[in-house]
Amino acid sequence: VHEILKRTACSRANNTMGINFLIANNIYEAAYPLHDGEYDSPGDDMNDRKLLYQEWARYGVFYKFQPIDLIRKYFGEKIGLYFAWLGLYTSFLIPSSIIGVIVFLYGCATIEEDIPSKEMCDQQNAFTMCPLCDKSCDYWNLSSACGTARASHLFDNPATVFFSIFMALWATMFLENWKRLQMRLGYFWDLTGIEEEEERAQEHSRPEYETKVREKLLKKSDQTVVQKLGTNVSESGEEDDDEDKLTWKDRFPGYLINIVSILFMIALTFSIVFAVIVYRITTAAALSLNKDTRSNVRVTVTATAVIINLVVILILDEIYGAVAKWLTKIEVPKTEQTFEERLILKAFLLKFVNAYSPIFYVAFFKGRFVGRPGSYVYVFNGYRMEECAPGGCLMELCIQLSIIMLGKQLIQNNIFEIGVPKLKKLFRKLKDETEPGETDSAHSRHPEQWDLDYSLEPYTGLTPEYMEMIIQFGFVTLFVASFPLAPVFALLNNVIEVRLDAKKFVTELRRPDAVRTKDIGIWFDILSGIGKFSVISNAFVIAITSDFIPRLVYQYSYSHNGTLHGFVNHTLSFFNVSQLKEGTQPENSQFDQDVQFCRFKDYREPPWAPNPYEYSKQYWSVLSARLAFVIIFQNLVMFLSVLVDWMIPDIPTDISDQIKKEKSLLVDFFLKEEHEKLKMMDEPSPSSQGGGHQSRRSRAASSAPSSQRQPGSIASSGSQHTNV
Amino acid sequence: VHEILKRTACSRANNTMGINFLIANNIYEAAYPLHDGEYDSPGDDMNDRKLLYQEWARYGVFYKFQPIDLIRKYFGEKIGLYFAWLGLYTSFLIPSSIIGVIVFLYGCATIEEDIPSKEMCDQQNAFTMCPLCDKSCDYWNLSSACGTARASHLFDNPATVFFSIFMALWATMFLENWKRLQMRLGYFWDLTGIEEEEERAQEHSRPEYETKVREKLLKKSDQTVVQKLGTNVSESGEEDDDEDKLTWKDRFPGYLINIVSILFMIALTFSIVFAVIVYRITTAAALSLNKDTRSNVRVTVTATAVIINLVVILILDEIYGAVAKWLTKIEVPKTEQTFEERLILKAFLLKFVNAYSPIFYVAFFKGRFVGRPGSYVYVFNGYRMEECAPGGCLMELCIQLSIIMLGKQLIQNNIFEIGVPKLKKLFRKLKDETEPGETDSAHSRHPEQWDLDYSLEPYTGLTPEYMEMIIQFGFVTLFVASFPLAPVFALLNNVIEVRLDAKKFVTELRRPDAVRTKDIGIWFDILSGIGKFSVISNAFVIAITSDFIPRLVYQYSYSHNGTLHGFVNHTLSFFNVSQLKEGTQPENSQFDQDVQFCRFKDYREPPWAPNPYEYSKQYWSVLSARLAFVIIFQNLVMFLSVLVDWMIPDIPTDISDQIKKEKSLLVDFFLKEEHEKLKMMDEPSPSSQGGGHQSRRSRAASSAPSSQRQPGSIASSGSQHTNV
Repeated sequence: VHEILKRTACSRANNTMGINFLIANNIYEAAYPLHDGEYDSPGDDMNDRKLLYQEWARYGVFYKFQPIDLIRKYFGEKIGLYFAWLGLYTSFLIPSSIIGVIVFLYGCATIEEDIPSKEMCDQQNAFTMCPLCDKSCDYWNLSSACGTARASHLFDNPATVFFSIFMALWATMFLENWKRLQMRLGYFWDLTGIEEEEERAQEHSRPEYETKVREKLLKKSDQTVVQKLGTNVSESGEEDDDEDKLTWKDRFPGYLINIVSILFMIALTFSIVFAVIVYRITTAAALSLNKDTRSNVRVTVTATAVIINLVVILILDEIYGAVAKWLTKIEVPKTEQTFEERLILKAFLLKFVNAYSPIFYVAFFKGRFVGRPGSYVYVFNGYRMEECAPGGCLMELCIQLSIIMLGKQLIQNNIFEIGVPKLKKLFRKLKDETEPGETDSAHSRHPEQWDLDYSLEPYTGLTPEYMEMIIQFGFVTLFVASFPLAPVFALLNNVIEVRLDAKKFVTELRRPDAVRTKDIGIWFDILSGIGKFSVISNAFVIAITSDFIPRLVYQYSYSHNGTLHGFVNHTLSFFNVSQLKEGTQPENSQFDQDVQFCRFKDYREPPWAPNPYEYSKQYWSVLSARLAFVIIFQNLVMFLSVLVDWMIPDIPTDISDQIKKEKSLLVDFFLKEEHEKLKMMDEPSPSSQGGGHQSRRSRAASSAPSSQRQPGSIASSGSQHTNV
Repeated sequence: VHEILKRTACSRANNTMGINFLIANNIYEAAYPLHDGEYDSPGDDMNDRKLLYQEWARYGVFYKFQPIDLIRKYFGEKIGLYFAWLGLYTSFLIPSSIIGVIVFLYGCATIEEDIPSKEMCDQQNAFTMCPLCDKSCDYWNLSSACGTARASHLFDNPATVFFSIFMALWATMFLENWKRLQMRLGYFWDLTGIEEEEERAQEHSRPEYETKVREKLLKKSDQTVVQKLGTNVSESGEEDDDEDKLTWKDRFPGYLINIVSILFMIALTFSIVFAVIVYRITTAAALSLNKDTRSNVRVTVTATAVIINLVVILILDEIYGAVAKWLTKIEVPKTEQTFEERLILKAFLLKFVNAYSPIFYVAFFKGRFVGRPGSYVYVFNGYRMEECAPGGCLMELCIQLSIIMLGKQLIQNNIFEIGVPKLKKLFRKLKDETEPGETDSAHSRHPEQWDLDYSLEPYTGLTPEYMEMIIQFGFVTLFVASFPLAPVFALLNNVIEVRLDAKKFVTELRRPDAVRTKDIGIWFDILSGIGKFSVISNAFVIAITSDFIPRLVYQYSYSHNGTLHGFVNHTLSFFNVSQLKEGTQPENSQFDQDVQFCRFKDYREPPWAPNPYEYSKQYWSVLSARLAFVIIFQNLVMFLSVLVDWMIPDIPTDISDQIKKEKSLLVDFFLKEEHEKLKMMDEPSPSSQGGGHQSRRSRAASSAPSSQRQPGSIASSGSQHTNV
């Protein structure tokens, strides 16, 4: 019975299954539109594919605008929109890169004038710091961290605050301009009327959905057969409405598996992040036992840990992509469109958490649960929680960001987008060669286009391309306060990415089916969500992670002469060495035995206060200032974004003028036509009924123009008429 | 020359001026559509006006739904939408009123369990407070403020926090539901196609604009005549584009006057608020000199000051309305629509500042610039800045809010909406009676409808009605954290307001011209702006004005047993009486001479600390907690609002189903028609050209349906065809 059911489901959904069904049953091996001939054929016979290759899909033409209309003509609207979007994004990265570089250069230029780092580097002004680990670590001089302090000034200066405001507005501007470009392309590509085609497509359920509904009906009918013996027939007839679609009850197991799996996946990501933390802590402890490795412990540990993070991110990225697909299949969404949307949402959620959780950890949590000398927080009894480098967490955040961003881009571009396809091609070739037969003789002749295209990779959708760019957009906006060079790296990557993708589409993939869409769909919502989230994220990076606020507070409330002199001393608390717990004192200290107080970075009461080591008043006043900054920054930037949003009209004026013009043309045309009809109708019967008839007609005529909203296609058909 | 110019401008803009021009020239006195007969005629002859009066425009039917469709039929879409909006708003006030009352009752019920107010009322636990004014005021016991402390608990309890989150979501829900209702009404009233009618109306410039352009052209041509003698003619032809519209340069004086006037107006409002503050301070000082009046100084001063505020608000409201109109005229907007939008924005800005500035002062500024005992802040040397009552500023905010809100509603409803029209009517009647003539004899006969309607007030637009409701919406949302009963008062007012407006429209106004609009226009943006602003405003009211956060902080950080016992003591700082400035000590103190320390409400270091009277650590930690609360509250509520927005679809499902159905009907109809055309065309010429011809035709046929997006009107004409 099940067999039959499946068949009927398939035959019912014939138009959606069709060739796919035959391919699935191995009757055909593949079905694809043919390419326009060869892209690298010698001679002058020009085809679109060759044109695209020469004008677009080569690295040599990276400085040129993309031939968007030709791309749309060859690949269809959906892929055309992707490249238009990518192009706009890349060109928007140019100004932000320039300003990012200027901000960075400002940091470089003012590095000599930065009083706190000068004070830290001053050998005379020796601050004896508390040991960084128990027993094996010695006290140390703050001046030994001079290098990182100077480096961190490159990224932690007032210009970054300005830059992150700029980038928040930049994101809004980009989205607004994309809306405008989409509108323009929609107008010229005649896409404004396809809403309802989409809706019609929505009404076709996916075959999997229909099968599930059939199964449900079958079970029900089995039950009702049993029930029917006792009850009335008319009852089951009323339930029909519920039966031919899946209710929440039917979907519950699927949803449950989804939620549980996603939570599990997120927990997995977090635990891997935690495992890397543990790795860092234990390795650092192990290395610092050995005298030879002690000097560059921090560099070694940080570098290896980031690389581990990167590898884990790359591996999980692939796994999560597959898992998201599997989960969406379990969910059995009704239509292709909901299927795609849910898949994207799930994949985005998992990949976002995967890519950003180590970064969020460094930005907001690292070094905040250390405790204080004398009562450190320990994990796995014996290992102290890790601290940030003396230069501040921002430096580390910057390193983490740049390595993950660059590594991800380089590796994904090189291995997944260039290497893997090449390998697959090679593998396919090998397979072909091992299978001798009549194809061999066919190859010796001039090969047909379908044979050539068959050797290419099948097209699998734009989701990975968009996903890569969206994650990059996150790197560019979410933490731009800590890494102003992110836009530059993104720009460099994207200039290559455009041509790489172009090359892939023109030379390495089978020609995809042309799909019409009006917009980039759910990606726009994700982008604008990231844009909104970036405001609060940057606010917190500046307020919590950077030293911007403590410096301001010191300068205006505590400094004697309004400068930052004495800031370093102000941020360091005192600790009475004699209160170190038994067994945690440094062994074989190179410092003299008269170290009485060591210093640590925190705002705490000194040992001689009535309540030693409690958070001091400074701590709370700086915290207040930090939080006040978050409130001011967030509301200011949100207000400015709304203003930008409101000032840039969604429809470009030239397009809206054009649409208006066409509308009035259309109205005139309709009026003329109705007039003619009226004349024709009046001629045969000029009777007394004419009056009432005429008034009804003219009402219809005047209501007709108001009911036409469709500018592009109708107007073009209108002008066709007038031309013909 | 100017005379001629104006005439040609008028004749050019004939269709917009027309009857208005004749009325302006006193050729006609008025022009209006006629009412449908009398609303109170005896007998059974039913007309729409009478039906509206009986079913809608009486207080007796306040519990009934409004007959929206009949209102739309009688008054047009614009007024129909207003009453639909008002109805939805009023019905949305019902749940919020209920919850508001519950929150208030919760406050009443828990008043006995509130430890801080109990502690304040405890006579044994006597806190000797510092005097409230110099010299003439004595030290006082905190227990004498017991009453206000208990009263403030009614509004300052944890339930208010919950309620203000609820109200923020309520505002989002209301706006979302209004979008849905608007969509539904737009569908049933066939409004979806009128966009372009509006756009066409936009293209007609206002006559004032055209006159200005003509004047500019005249000046220019005078100049060019002089210039022409020396230069070429073709040059001036190219400048034509700029000449037939007003550029930024032409508008500059108007904009400048606008900005300056608005800033002046806002400054005026602020200075009046300040003047009232000065009144309060001086009167309080004067009254406290006199022994008889001393006892109820606070009540007298507060009550009179609020009444002054109220009167000023009411007077300025009328003035600002007129000023906004005048300013918009100076601006010379191009079209009627921009005129209305700018007028509304200006009027809203001025009236908002006017209505809310005293409230904002009490909520966020009052009592924050008092200084401290020993170094008070003085204005006009001699008067101390005012403090909040011992119960906290929230109580005063609540009083201020309720009096202004209730007073504004009652007075505006009674005087401006009932009284003034009655007076005008009376005045008109008197004038008519003093002017004897043939009209007298006409009156004796059965009066014609136009005579009856002439005696009514002319209709002057919906702006005041909307404005009143929007300002009320602000009272309901912006400060709901301090006054949970606001929705109840708004509900009571609106139940009356609906019928009052209805009565006015049916019985007291000439019938307005029916105007088609698709939505409520800029009011929606203003509403959603207020909704967004209310989130941050409520966050600050809870965090800064109420005692919610200090209590939480005390309970979890300072309390010994996790209760609020000792909270009052904790919030009061000590002051050493001997440090009072010479001449400010209380004269004739009733307290014993052994008062050594007096207490005041602030977090400051005690006199015996190394840095006496500086802000203490508690101050900063409480401030941090307050600011952290603002951040959490704002982001949580914004996130929830986005979620609500996302969960409620903008188009109701039944409407979107209906639209889909009609679309497919329409597509079928078009396909059929195109098929018939095709047949008719193929019949005469079945030649070899047919193939190419047919394919082009069928492409046109298949593109036609996709280009029709207009559901309502087209589909109805479609079904007309099929029915006929």
